[in-house]
Amino acid sequence: MSIRKHALKIRCLGLALFIIVSVASSQQKNSLSDQIEKYQNIAQRLLEQGLRELPSYSILEKITSVGHRLPGSPGAAAAVELTRQIMMEMGLKNVHLEPTTVPHWVRGPEEEALMISSVLGDHALSTAAIGGSAATHEDGLSAQVIEVKDFSELERLKESAAGKIIFFNVKMEPGTLNTFSAYGKAAAYRVRGAVEAAKRGAAFALVRSPTTANDDFPHTGMMSYEPGIPKIPAACISTQGADLLSRSLKLDPDLRLFIRFHCQNLPPVRSYNVIGDLPGYEKPEEIILLGGHLDSWDLSPGAHDDGAGCAHALSALYLIKALDLRPKRTIRAVMFMNEEFGGSGGCDYAVSEKRADEKHILAVESDRGGFLPLGIGINADDPTLNWMQKWMPIFQSIQIHWIRKGGGGVDIAPLAEQGTVLGGLIPDSQRYFDVHHSGRDTLDAVHPRELELGTIALSLLAYIVSEEGLGPQMK
Amino acid sequence: MSIRKHALKIRCLGLALFIIVSVASSQQKNSLSDQIEKYQNIAQRLLEQGLRELPSYSILEKITSVGHRLPGSPGAAAAVELTRQIMMEMGLKNVHLEPTTVPHWVRGPEEEALMISSVLGDHALSTAAIGGSAATHEDGLSAQVIEVKDFSELERLKESAAGKIIFFNVKMEPGTLNTFSAYGKAAAYRVRGAVEAAKRGAAFALVRSPTTANDDFPHTGMMSYEPGIPKIPAACISTQGADLLSRSLKLDPDLRLFIRFHCQNLPPVRSYNVIGDLPGYEKPEEIILLGGHLDSWDLSPGAHDDGAGCAHALSALYLIKALDLRPKRTIRAVMFMNEEFGGSGGCDYAVSEKRADEKHILAVESDRGGFLPLGIGINADDPTLNWMQKWMPIFQSIQIHWIRKGGGGVDIAPLAEQGTVLGGLIPDSQRYFDVHHSGRDTLDAVHPRELELGTIALSLLAYIVSEEGLGPQMK
Repeated sequence: MSIRKHALKIRCLGLALFIIVSVASSQQKNSLSDQIEKYQNIAQRLLEQGLRELPSYSILEKITSVGHRLPGSPGAAAAVELTRQIMMEMGLKNVHLEPTTVPHWVRGPEEEALMISSVLGDHALSTAAIGGSAATHEDGLSAQVIEVKDFSELERLKESAAGKIIFFNVKMEPGTLNTFSAYGKAAAYRVRGAVEAAKRGAAFALVRSPTTANDDFPHTGMMSYEPGIPKIPAACISTQGADLLSRSLKLDPDLRLFIRFHCQNLPPVRSYNVIGDLPGYEKPEEIILLGGHLDSWDLSPGAHDDGAGCAHALSALYLIKALDLRPKRTIRAVMFMNEEFGGSGGCDYAVSEKRADEKHILAVESDRGGFLPLGIGINADDPTLNWMQKWMPIFQSIQIHWIRKGGGGVDIAPLAEQGTVLGGLIPDSQRYFDVHHSGRDTLDAVHPRELELGTIALSLLAYIVSEEGLGPQMK
Repeated sequence: MSIRKHALKIRCLGLALFIIVSVASSQQKNSLSDQIEKYQNIAQRLLEQGLRELPSYSILEKITSVGHRLPGSPGAAAAVELTRQIMMEMGLKNVHLEPTTVPHWVRGPEEEALMISSVLGDHALSTAAIGGSAATHEDGLSAQVIEVKDFSELERLKESAAGKIIFFNVKMEPGTLNTFSAYGKAAAYRVRGAVEAAKRGAAFALVRSPTTANDDFPHTGMMSYEPGIPKIPAACISTQGADLLSRSLKLDPDLRLFIRFHCQNLPPVRSYNVIGDLPGYEKPEEIILLGGHLDSWDLSPGAHDDGAGCAHALSALYLIKALDLRPKRTIRAVMFMNEEFGGSGGCDYAVSEKRADEKHILAVESDRGGFLPLGIGINADDPTLNWMQKWMPIFQSIQIHWIRKGGGGVDIAPLAEQGTVLGGLIPDSQRYFDVHHSGRDTLDAVHPRELELGTIALSLLAYIVSEEGLGPQMK
C-alpha cells in the first residue's frame, strides 16, 4: 500500500470514527435532553399536586397535635403510633416499627430563676433546664453570679468560681450568613458549660440561649457530663433575660440568683423507629431512604425540629404515589426516634438484622426545618456529584438553586459505614434558630408552601435516583 | 527570503502574538480575580455590618410606626417628613422633596357585608372596599348574588345580572411556583370586576381576595372604571368568606347580601417623592437609583408593600456610608409617592427638570417585599447581562443565586425612555400574597435578617455599578 493510500485510509477511518462519536454523542445528548424533559414534566406535576393539596402541612398538623415528643414521653409514643397509621392510610408497604431504647429525662413541673438584688429589687427570668441536666436541691440554690464571655475567661476567673453560678453570656454571632455555623459555636456553652463550670468548683451553669432572636424564650437542647466531674445542673435563659442579667450585674455585682429545677433522669424507655416503603418494581432491595426524626424537645411541639422533616419524608412518598409513579428502586420513609437525646434510633436502624439483604444507595435526612429550600447537599465523590449536576435544570425548575457536597444528619450517619451516600435538604437558615428548641417551634411558624417545596424537592430527588441510580455507573 | 524563512517568520510572529494574547488574557484574568476578591471583601463587610446592626429593620420600624400611608393620607405626609429626616440624619446630600399630585380616596368608617338567609340565618363577612370604589347608597344595598368562576361565565349569565351582586369567586392558582404570575391572573377580577359586572347591569362587584392564604382577611388594591360604564361599587371578601358564601349559595340560592360602603373620592392632594444622595466623587452626574414607594394601602402599615423596599433603599446607602465606601458615581435613594394609586410619583420624577443634567445608568426598585432575596433582575441587553454574570461569585457569597433578565417596577418604568437600565430585587414570593394589601402586612410579618439580606444585595449591586459602570463598555 502506498503511503498516500495509507494516509487516505487513516483519514477515512478518522472520519468514520468522528461520525460514530458525533452520532453517539448527539444520541447521548438527545437521550439526556429527553430524560430531562421527562423529569421536568414530573417535576411540574409534583409541584402542582403538592402546592395545590399541601399534604405536608396536613401531616405536620397531625404530628404537632400530639404535643411535644421528647424521647420516652407519651407524646413520642403517640407520634410512633400516629405515623404508623399515616403510613398505613397512605398505602405504604412493609410498614413496621423497629425498637430502640431511649433515655428518659423529664423536666420539672416548675423552673425558677429569680434575680435578687437589694439595689434593683427582684426579677424573675424565663428559664429552661438543659436536656439531661441534674436537678438542683429540692429547695433550690441561691448564689452569686460570675458572667463570662468564653471558656478562657472562665479559666482566668476560676479562683472565684467555687459555689457560684457561672453565667455564659455568649452571643450567637449574628454577622454569619449561615446560622448553623454560628449556632455550632454558641451551642458549645450549652453542651459543655456544666462540665467546664464544675471543673472550677461552680454550683450551676447558666447559659444564654444560642439564637439570634431578641425575645424572652429560653432554648433547651443537649448537654454532656463527664466521668469524674461533678454533675452540676444547667439551664438556659432567653437573650433578653441574658441582657437584663448582664446589665443588672454591672449595677449590682453582688446580686444573687435563686434557682430551682426539679428535672429527673429516669430509667430508659423502649421506643421505635417507624418505617414504610414504596417498593421498587425492579430492584426492591436497593433503597432510597428519606428520613426525619419523630422526637422533639419538650418546650413546643417541634414543628420545624423535626416535625417538618417527618412531614417532608412522608409527604414525598405520598406525592410520588399520588402521581402514580412506580419507582424502580424502593423509596422508604423512616421516622427516626431519639435524634435529640443521643441518636439511638439511627444507630439501631443501621445495625438491625433487617438491613442484611438491603442496600441503601442514598439516605437523605431533612432536619433543618421546613423553611424555603435552597439546595441539596450530597456527600458523594466528585464523579457522582458531577453526574448529579446534569439534573440541575430539573431542580432549577422547582427553585432548587444548587446541588453541592454536603448534607447528612445524625440519624443517617451510621449508614455511611455501609457505603450509603448521605444527603440533606438545605432550606434557608435565617429563621431556624429563632424557634429551634424553644417554645416558639409551633405549627404557625411553618409556612405551608415553603414546607411543601421541600417535600417536592425530596420527592423529585428520590424518584430520579430510584430510576437512574446514583452516579454515572448505575442505571 | 526563502519560503522556509518566511514560514519561520510567520511561526515566530504567531508565537509572539500567542504570548501577547496569553499574557493580556492572563492579566485580564488576574485583574478580574483581583476585582472579585476586592468586592468579595466588601460583600463580606456589608454582610457583617448589616446582619449585626440590622439597620433596615430599625428604619422599617419607624416607617410602619406612622400607620398606613395611603396616597393623600396624613400617614403618607408623615412618611414624607420622616424619611426626609432619616436621610438628613444619615448624612445624605441633596436631600429634598419633589412634588407630585395624588388621588385622594378614603375608605368609609364602617364597611358591611351581611349574608341574609331565611334558611341559614345571617352571617357577617369580613370585607374591604377596593381602592377607588364608589360608595353604595348611604343606606346600603340588598340584592341577590350571582357567583361566577370567570368573565365568560358572567357573559353566559348576563340575562339575570341586572341589579344583582356579581360574586367573582376566582381562586388565585396555588399550583404556580411564582405567586406573582398567579396573582396577576386572579387580580384581574379585582381590577376589572366592577366594569364587567356593570356592563351587564349588575349593582355591585364582590371579589374573592387574590391570595393563596386561607384566612379571614380581605385584601384591597386598585380597580378601574371606564367612561360610559356605570361606576358601581366593588369590594373584596376574604378567602374563607368567599368559601362560606359559595357554600351558602349552594344551600340557599336566594340568599341576599346587604352591603354598605361609604368610601369617598376627594379632590387630589399635593404630596412628594423624597430624594437623597451619596454623591459620586468622579462622575456625580451619573446616577444609580435605589427606590421603593412610601405609600401603602390602608388596611395595614404596609410593612412588606413597600415599607420593606423603602428600608432596603435607605439602608443600602446607610451601609455603604457605614463602611466608608465613597462611590465613584452617585448612589441615590428615592422614596416614591403613589405607586399604588396611579404611579404619579414615578412619572413626575422622570420628567422633572432636575433630571436635565443627570444620567441614570441603573434604576432598581424593591417592591416585592422584604422576604429572603433569591436573585436580581436586570432589564439590560445581552452583553450587559453577560458582563453582570462575571460578578456572580461575589453575589453568591451573599446568597444571591442568580442575575437574570427581569426586574423593574412601576415607579422606575418611566426612566426606561431615557435609556436607563431597570432592575429589581427578587425575593422569594411564597409568603408575599398572604399579607399583600391586607391587614396582615404588619411589622411582625417581616424577618429582620431576611430584610437585611435584601439591603446587602442592593448595596453591593449599587456599589459595584458605581465603581465599574454598567456593561463592558463602561468603567
